[in-house]
Amino acid sequence: FLGMQIVHLEHARAVLRVPYGERLAGNATSGVLHGGVITTVIDSACGVSVIAALGKRMGIATLDLRIDYLKPARPGEAVTAAAHCYKVTRNICFVRALAYHSDRDDPIANCAASFMITSLEPAGPGLTEDTL
Amino acid sequence: FLGMQIVHLEHARAVLRVPYGERLAGNATSGVLHGGVITTVIDSACGVSVIAALGKRMGIATLDLRIDYLKPARPGEAVTAAAHCYKVTRNICFVRALAYHSDRDDPIANCAASFMITSLEPAGPGLTEDTL
Amino acid sequence: FLGMQIVHLEHARAVLRVPYGERLAGNATSGVLHGGVITTVIDSACGVSVIAALGKRMGIATLDLRIDYLKPARPGEAVTAAAHCYKVTRNICFVRALAYHSDRDDPIANCAASFMITSLEPAGPGLTEDTL
Amino acid sequence: FLGMQIVHLEHARAVLRVPYGERLAGNATSGVLHGGVITTVIDSACGVSVIAALGKRMGIATLDLRIDYLKPARPGEAVTAAAHCYKVTRNICFVRALAYHSDRDDPIANCAASFMITSLEPAGPGLTEDTL
Repeated sequence: FLGMQIVHLEHARAVLRVPYGERLAGNATSGVLHGGVITTVIDSACGVSVIAALGKRMGIATLDLRIDYLKPARPGEAVTAAAHCYKVTRNICFVRALAYHSDRDDPIANCAASFMITSLEPAGPGLTEDTL
Repeated sequence: FLGMQIVHLEHARAVLRVPYGERLAGNATSGVLHGGVITTVIDSACGVSVIAALGKRMGIATLDLRIDYLKPARPGEAVTAAAHCYKVTRNICFVRALAYHSDRDDPIANCAASFMITSLEPAGPGLTEDTL
Repeated sequence: FLGMQIVHLEHARAVLRVPYGERLAGNATSGVLHGGVITTVIDSACGVSVIAALGKRMGIATLDLRIDYLKPARPGEAVTAAAHCYKVTRNICFVRALAYHSDRDDPIANCAASFMITSLEPAGPGLTEDTL
Repeated sequence: FLGMQIVHLEHARAVLRVPYGERLAGNATSGVLHGGVITTVIDSACGVSVIAALGKRMGIATLDLRIDYLKPARPGEAVTAAAHCYKVTRNICFVRALAYHSDRDDPIANCAASFMITSLEPAGPGLTEDTL
């Protein structure tokens, strides 16, 4: 219900976008987006990049997520999160991500995350996936 | 719109709760909550504990947030986040938090965060507060 | 060669101490300890607490380490690190730790870390253990 | 006493190297470097990149340091850390860094850190700098 969309997807990389919405503002007066919205779009982009890196649908779970908030998001603008799963080991996938409005070189937030591969079989209905 | 409530508040400590809602599930089949919901309630509890520690309403902004996800949330159960702002310096406030269902000794997630004090004046309308 | 000592050890908990030494100072004039010394004693205490929690000597490797530095260490004083491995899962162990001079309630640094169990067999000579 | 050297320095970027030394091994049998050595060279590279970004010698202090360990270091090989201070705000500097043997695309560790600017005046003798 955030209206999140996948705008780009390739091997080990994903870009997601959430449009600005007034009901997502953390502060009704200033209109600044609730931090949780930025965190959620980053977390989701990371998860999608992991699935794109694994090449098939496995069960994954976020193990840890660390975000630096570099500056406040601007009211009225969409937020984009670009994630790269830069290392895959037997059990763990490592991801870096940025959130920004339109310029990747002027980021709103910087993220490092790791995901655990919880099942080596493709995920069927009911499998735990707490990031997607 | 997560239905988040403050259930306890004292000096430098805050406990927030988000009831389970099917629309918040990240996976429609399993019913497991979207990780972003857990992240958001933790982030909010941290922000409230900082304001409780400062004793007056200042402008604050999340500087960084780091969460370890210890186990998946159980479908159908409320998630509680308890945060403690354990150190206040001139510019920075440091917080620890846990998320859990009903037993704090069996946590879902563990969090460390820091917040920057962005204004020394009480926050009026329009001031940036990206965590509340 | 830091002169690090284990001063307390019980199930899932470890306390290590490094005495002050002038050659460990990061700044010769101020005598403030190099940040790497504090990081190393914390990292080591975390690793020992994991081994104490596992109850037998397994191969472990630091997966991630995150440290908040709350205030500078005082020149001329020993630094103690107390770690608690508060959660053990099949593959991952989660740890919290503090560094302080003599008062745990006035910490120098706060740490959250996770370790991977790299072998289920007891570690023999030559096994990877990059934390001890 | 780690034998650390600055091998490259430009605006906001620094590369440091620590040669392999048997006395730095965390495990005498395997010869694998103590994790604290890798952490220390990364932390130092981050601090130097911040000073390079600020353009003049200010007092800085590590605020937080987060490292993902991607694979064990190989015995007998030097470790290089490359850091980039990618964002400077009024009070806080944000850094990303990698540690590797010879190939940056096959990293040993990935780091995100933030530093506080503790004095706006150039640092004279005795000023706190716990990272250099």
